[in-house]
Amino acid sequence: MIAMDQFTYRPARDELAYTFGGRLPVAHVRSGDILRVHTEDCFGGLVRGPADLPSQVCRMPYLNPVSGPFFVEDAEPGDTLAVHIASIVPARDWGVSATFPYFGALTSTSHTATLQPPLDERVWVYDIDRAAGVVRYHATESEHTVDLPLDPMIGTIGVAPGGMESRSTIVPDHYGGNLDTPELRAGTTLYLGVNVHGAMLALGDGHARQGQGEACGVGVEIATMTTLAVEVIKGADTAWPRLETDTAIMSVGCARPLEDAYRIAHQDLTAWTVDLCGLQTLDAYQLISQAGRAPIGNVCDPNYTVLAAVDKALIPQSLPAYHDAHARLRNLAGARE
Amino acid sequence: MIAMDQFTYRPARDELAYTFGGRLPVAHVRSGDILRVHTEDCFGGLVRGPADLPSQVCRMPYLNPVSGPFFVEDAEPGDTLAVHIASIVPARDWGVSATFPYFGALTSTSHTATLQPPLDERVWVYDIDRAAGVVRYHATESEHTVDLPLDPMIGTIGVAPGGMESRSTIVPDHYGGNLDTPELRAGTTLYLGVNVHGAMLALGDGHARQGQGEACGVGVEIATMTTLAVEVIKGADTAWPRLETDTAIMSVGCARPLEDAYRIAHQDLTAWTVDLCGLQTLDAYQLISQAGRAPIGNVCDPNYTVLAAVDKALIPQSLPAYHDAHARLRNLAGARE
Amino acid sequence: MIAMDQFTYRPARDELAYTFGGRLPVAHVRSGDILRVHTEDCFGGLVRGPADLPSQVCRMPYLNPVSGPFFVEDAEPGDTLAVHIASIVPARDWGVSATFPYFGALTSTSHTATLQPPLDERVWVYDIDRAAGVVRYHATESEHTVDLPLDPMIGTIGVAPGGMESRSTIVPDHYGGNLDTPELRAGTTLYLGVNVHGAMLALGDGHARQGQGEACGVGVEIATMTTLAVEVIKGADTAWPRLETDTAIMSVGCARPLEDAYRIAHQDLTAWTVDLCGLQTLDAYQLISQAGRAPIGNVCDPNYTVLAAVDKALIPQSLPAYHDAHARLRNLAGARE
Amino acid sequence: MIAMDQFTYRPARDELAYTFGGRLPVAHVRSGDILRVHTEDCFGGLVRGPADLPSQVCRMPYLNPVSGPFFVEDAEPGDTLAVHIASIVPARDWGVSATFPYFGALTSTSHTATLQPPLDERVWVYDIDRAAGVVRYHATESEHTVDLPLDPMIGTIGVAPGGMESRSTIVPDHYGGNLDTPELRAGTTLYLGVNVHGAMLALGDGHARQGQGEACGVGVEIATMTTLAVEVIKGADTAWPRLETDTAIMSVGCARPLEDAYRIAHQDLTAWTVDLCGLQTLDAYQLISQAGRAPIGNVCDPNYTVLAAVDKALIPQSLPAYHDAHARLRNLAGARE
Repeated sequence: MIAMDQFTYRPARDELAYTFGGRLPVAHVRSGDILRVHTEDCFGGLVRGPADLPSQVCRMPYLNPVSGPFFVEDAEPGDTLAVHIASIVPARDWGVSATFPYFGALTSTSHTATLQPPLDERVWVYDIDRAAGVVRYHATESEHTVDLPLDPMIGTIGVAPGGMESRSTIVPDHYGGNLDTPELRAGTTLYLGVNVHGAMLALGDGHARQGQGEACGVGVEIATMTTLAVEVIKGADTAWPRLETDTAIMSVGCARPLEDAYRIAHQDLTAWTVDLCGLQTLDAYQLISQAGRAPIGNVCDPNYTVLAAVDKALIPQSLPAYHDAHARLRNLAGARE
Repeated sequence: MIAMDQFTYRPARDELAYTFGGRLPVAHVRSGDILRVHTEDCFGGLVRGPADLPSQVCRMPYLNPVSGPFFVEDAEPGDTLAVHIASIVPARDWGVSATFPYFGALTSTSHTATLQPPLDERVWVYDIDRAAGVVRYHATESEHTVDLPLDPMIGTIGVAPGGMESRSTIVPDHYGGNLDTPELRAGTTLYLGVNVHGAMLALGDGHARQGQGEACGVGVEIATMTTLAVEVIKGADTAWPRLETDTAIMSVGCARPLEDAYRIAHQDLTAWTVDLCGLQTLDAYQLISQAGRAPIGNVCDPNYTVLAAVDKALIPQSLPAYHDAHARLRNLAGARE
Repeated sequence: MIAMDQFTYRPARDELAYTFGGRLPVAHVRSGDILRVHTEDCFGGLVRGPADLPSQVCRMPYLNPVSGPFFVEDAEPGDTLAVHIASIVPARDWGVSATFPYFGALTSTSHTATLQPPLDERVWVYDIDRAAGVVRYHATESEHTVDLPLDPMIGTIGVAPGGMESRSTIVPDHYGGNLDTPELRAGTTLYLGVNVHGAMLALGDGHARQGQGEACGVGVEIATMTTLAVEVIKGADTAWPRLETDTAIMSVGCARPLEDAYRIAHQDLTAWTVDLCGLQTLDAYQLISQAGRAPIGNVCDPNYTVLAAVDKALIPQSLPAYHDAHARLRNLAGARE
Repeated sequence: MIAMDQFTYRPARDELAYTFGGRLPVAHVRSGDILRVHTEDCFGGLVRGPADLPSQVCRMPYLNPVSGPFFVEDAEPGDTLAVHIASIVPARDWGVSATFPYFGALTSTSHTATLQPPLDERVWVYDIDRAAGVVRYHATESEHTVDLPLDPMIGTIGVAPGGMESRSTIVPDHYGGNLDTPELRAGTTLYLGVNVHGAMLALGDGHARQGQGEACGVGVEIATMTTLAVEVIKGADTAWPRLETDTAIMSVGCARPLEDAYRIAHQDLTAWTVDLCGLQTLDAYQLISQAGRAPIGNVCDPNYTVLAAVDKALIPQSLPAYHDAHARLRNLAGARE
């Protein structure tokens, strides 16, 4: 039987983490626990208005803080950690976005290096209306205002990378991290391969919403109260992050160039489909080629993110994924609301 | 007043074209004309069953034939050709897909060259049920069968590239071509910059549907009867293909690596938004960063395709795009059904 | 016996070509012929001083003119055309380079699109001293002057691409074109697969020298008198351009991203080594991995260029490449000087 | 005055490090010290013959061990560490190379993921003749044997990455690491930005030689005795690794895709040239565009490596780089031989 403890974690400012790996745990949790985690925004809450230019009020490497890590009991290398996102509640009635010098898809960067000057640095403040379910955009140099759907997501979530590595929270990779995909919303279960004893789960970087690719490099950044349910799936390897919703399974690829992220995600989804339903590999490749979706996560972080997704209804799913962890955790979280 | 002629073009086999540019026109059309065009599938109709391996029954460069080109009267370099897709009707009750040696996203290719042998070449035949609106997939090495939504699209449509160039129909680029995006379905208006006198519009390569990225390199390939309405917008430059539907505007980028396709599309959509509604550039960049979609077209052709899309409702659109050509052509085509 | 005709071609201004393919031949030549070809610089000779900004004095697509095409008798698809560069003589005592808006490796471009303004456009005029064998650089905003070794090369040389295509001379690809590699100097033999009857050889875009990658997008551009010897090698396929000197063989890859150009070149050199000396494939891969050179050609053109090179002395060469065409053409050209 | 201590470090097997960062120092050194460091090969010495397949005898993450880290006294973030390579002596009379499953430039990989099976795994053993200065290649499936020049280099050298990160020794990045460039030979001075107190220098992964790009993913791997001289340059920032020899300066870029490595290196070399000699930026860009070399380091590691190099004689060098550290360390090391 799965235990059903619940606890709430609110990090003090100096408890925030800026890496995956290389940190001591802030708490221990067990399979079946419900975690309520306060997360700060990617600027550590320091950008609150047009005058708070990120490059002035923030200081490297103190960007993109995460809450955690949480030591998950019984999680060992070779296992998989299932993390169900039960809810993501914006903690404030505003969010911020910005341009940041030499960061984003439509500017040269530290890596796509040119001799051109950076774009102007600027801050946008959004109103968040939870009741109406909207995020309000305001243009800075004209009067245009428009409401966008509120669609909260966790930008950064992952486990320790293993191999004695410790990686900046700016980076997405095989262990999760700064995935920056809108698919990490409430109702989704994330599967991450465990690389170290205790897994060491951490999360942060909520977005009230973001466009596909997060073109300017920054979503509508928010602090959140995020509720998770976790479970260790013993003896299940997971090479790249995988997602499951009530209707779909998805694989995540993180790499540069962007086509490699696409390749990773689609190769993994093909293999997962083969594992789940016994389709032969080329048959699975063919089905995904016609039925698959490939939502872009980010085109701005040190690795870009692309997902490969297919509806469960389209594959002959004899075995539920990861022993049905998604359904179990969803129900568990629902029972605790 | 716009003329309202309608004509039907069915190419003889030896009239099919394999390039954009470098061909004499098969017919002349005028702004306001309705074209009903028969298109062959990408294999020229030669792949009809599992034994018809594409590399054996097809011969380079006689792949991906297009119908046309059509000389559009009054179209001059510096103008834009608007092409509204009124309907795409599958011409047969089957479609085919395949793996093709060293072509596709999950294989090494002639350009991502390795020392590995190719994947097996194989053909999948799909049933097309127009009444039910489904495309039926059959696994080749097991019994799995599943119905996918029928969602016909034109894979290849473009004008002459200009600059005295003539390009293989396998290639997508600034003049259109093998864009391979599901967004080119009925109801969409495509805007293409005119590069040569008469524009020289051609199209083919219908798909009953395809997944995002067209991972295996081949959609559910069909012959079609496609109905178009065309209009020349004088004095309007268009650098990259643009799409308009009743609800959204989209820009298309074609390039390698894939992030450059993303960059082109988003830079163009930002500029288009600025032009349409007077938002300042960074304000438009910000809005698209939060509200934009970035559907991947193909990750298999000589250039990859990514779109940038934003809903019209989200931008303060004072001026309809291209003098409202989308609405005019949609109505025109509707009136002629 | 090989014929030994020699002729000189000097194009009139309106004879210059701006594509490979899609042109009628300017002359017929035969195996064993010596061609003396005048070539214009990439700006058509219109940039002659600091005030001649390329974007103002040149007009697209009239950039990068080539002389030709030459119809090579007896050249058929499936054959290889060997072109030995006997000499490249600068036609003037000056050369020019420039920055060009949104072109080059250290700027955003039409494809690596950003929202940043372009770099300043500027012209550098170099003195060419053939007797001293130097090219003299002058800084524009300070007094620095320095002599660089004169190392003339042909930037653009190729045959018709086949497949009914016609490609801008700005592009490098499998048929040659704007390869922009310093290895195309006097003493080198270039092998190109023949794609159309007559091959349709053309060349231009001489550089007094260039750095590896041609970072700013423009070499030290010169008009030349270039002497070539040509030979058709019947029944020899060549997928990508290959080079041979007295000491080395080299394969050329043209693609984006740059690693694909590297992959193409190294896969081809591995295959060529296997063909020449019977090494098993992985043994050849290993030898090239330790002994190979990989000079970058360009990182600015629509396709980037990387070469893979290995010294002939290191491979157990039982068969001379292409029936010893390099030695034969070198001797032929030498006999005619 | 600079101290002139000298010490020798030979790691016990369990002292070897597999990350940059995240390790306690094995010794303290000071500016002016001479270090004699034993380094193991990338396989930890476990691959000694054709039967020792790396994937069987090695275990992740225990690959590519480095010796160190060395705490350099007085090194603080914002300083630069100069490391002069005085000599690299192969420790054994043999070296090994291999193909490794899904690693290398001419195979699909974990990131350029395809559905193809891996290449065969195979080991090549090379004889190293220090007296003759040669490395002897033996084909595995035929009789071919050939001597290549012995050109020892250090494949992996770096400092802690900072930002609380700890990175696998397989990775090259801004702090150095698995740069895999032949330019890191005896006589070269490497400049690395200091990111943490003490810099934490470590090195390993000697190659008897390698080709440009290290196509198969593995050089001629050797254990070495490497002699270094170190100096802290206070108050000098260094964003990316830089190299200096008696005749040239070079900047190193590490990134994917490969063109971004090229861009980083050339942007940095341009900036360095401007700093050293006062050329205006576009003048420096122009000079490097015509005079620069761009040797590829690796096209197989998690980041690829490209260098940008220019001869010192070509730039109007008023100020020696880093207060003439190269000359000082070279002389210091020479005095101690």
